[in-house]
Amino acid sequence: MSAVDFAAFVEKLADAASEAILPFFRTSLGAIDKNIGGSFDPVTEADHAAESAMRRLIELTFPLHGIIGEEFGSIREDADYVWVLDPIDGTKSFIAGMPIWGTLIGLLHHGRPIYGMMVQPFIRERFTGDGEQSNWSGPGIDLKPAQRLLSTRDCPDLATAILMTTSPLLYDAPRLTAFRRVESRVRLSRYGCDCYAFAMLAAGHVDCVIEAGLKAYDIAPLVPIIRGAGGIVTTWTGGEPEEGGDIVASGCAALHDQVLELLRQGG
Amino acid sequence: MSAVDFAAFVEKLADAASEAILPFFRTSLGAIDKNIGGSFDPVTEADHAAESAMRRLIELTFPLHGIIGEEFGSIREDADYVWVLDPIDGTKSFIAGMPIWGTLIGLLHHGRPIYGMMVQPFIRERFTGDGEQSNWSGPGIDLKPAQRLLSTRDCPDLATAILMTTSPLLYDAPRLTAFRRVESRVRLSRYGCDCYAFAMLAAGHVDCVIEAGLKAYDIAPLVPIIRGAGGIVTTWTGGEPEEGGDIVASGCAALHDQVLELLRQGG
Repeated sequence: MSAVDFAAFVEKLADAASEAILPFFRTSLGAIDKNIGGSFDPVTEADHAAESAMRRLIELTFPLHGIIGEEFGSIREDADYVWVLDPIDGTKSFIAGMPIWGTLIGLLHHGRPIYGMMVQPFIRERFTGDGEQSNWSGPGIDLKPAQRLLSTRDCPDLATAILMTTSPLLYDAPRLTAFRRVESRVRLSRYGCDCYAFAMLAAGHVDCVIEAGLKAYDIAPLVPIIRGAGGIVTTWTGGEPEEGGDIVASGCAALHDQVLELLRQGG
Repeated sequence: MSAVDFAAFVEKLADAASEAILPFFRTSLGAIDKNIGGSFDPVTEADHAAESAMRRLIELTFPLHGIIGEEFGSIREDADYVWVLDPIDGTKSFIAGMPIWGTLIGLLHHGRPIYGMMVQPFIRERFTGDGEQSNWSGPGIDLKPAQRLLSTRDCPDLATAILMTTSPLLYDAPRLTAFRRVESRVRLSRYGCDCYAFAMLAAGHVDCVIEAGLKAYDIAPLVPIIRGAGGIVTTWTGGEPEEGGDIVASGCAALHDQVLELLRQGG
């Protein structure tokens, strides 16, 4: 079964997640802290409802597939096909009412990401990719649904690049030093966009995204979208990105090489 | 003529601005730098097209009214009624493809802000206020247009507050010290949201917004929205906010007093 065969099913997962989440967005909800005494990591009822809804659909439709979920852990992780789910990537944006969080749905085949989607239910836009081609669907200028191919842009000169990261506060000291080496050379650096940063890279509006300490579910669903749009995504040392860790994505290879080199220096 | 009488006209201005801007959003456009050698301040064709369209409508409909615009300057500034226009607040978000910029439209009467709107054309949501009442309209859960009243939330304890600012990089050293005194005590601090920060405060999702060095057009249109939702907005020293400068807005008076006190200390 190819990635394309899963596309319609992923749309259904996205519909289920959107329905589960939207009633909770921009309402007053208590957020409980998963890391007692640790950093602020809100989990909302929406998070749980959406992952439950998606897991239910997967169990019904593909009972032999594995699932790795942000909220409810892993099952059958060594199955041929494993789904990777992050119901709300960008929970801090979510609780602040900002519509720049996303639902991430990824599919691994023998451990490799072969299909991925990022959905923003409130805006109703979806970014999908299979590693070969990536697509956007969402609101068109005329209020009707629109769609188009996604393509990264070339930006071989770091001095003209737009860089995104979720927050420099998430870096430890050596990683911050490495990040600042890149940041000090770009045209514009933006914070706080979580999965949207990678989506905007795939869409050709952003040239580089650097993150530290990502989980598999933060990045695996985005890998086929980035690659299908022509982008490059690796760890900071050039390794495969799907298990998470320190991740960098670029719109073109020339920029990626420069950024990896700067991240490596001194370190 | 009361503020309510202007409401329908402001919707028309918003329509005109949205139509002018949307064709340029998420397209590849060169951005020119207004401050040669200064900080990065992109102006897009969209910015110019939207302000031109709004000014044309105002000149046709209210030829005696004044206009203060971000792009094309001021005219008849001492008229009884003066329109304050910022076609794209959040240009850095705009050029990065992030849908968290807004078009700001404000109306002053004898220098006081009496009506304001923040529009996000891509998401199709609008925040309006007349100082007495504030409203939201936008996409509902069922895909149909929805609307509701806006109301700030009470958060008398800074330790549980969500704080927003556009960027700490915009503060000079003493202001940064003052800002950090507040930031170090809140539950969550978020960057990079421009006018959306104030809109989310009015909607009750954010408790405090602190900014430095705002222009009149960055804040005057937002004042009636914040106040109509029950919020407080002043300068850092408690003065009237409509001319810009260092601005703080809070969802309730108890929090506002604490924040003003912290901003004042030492600095």
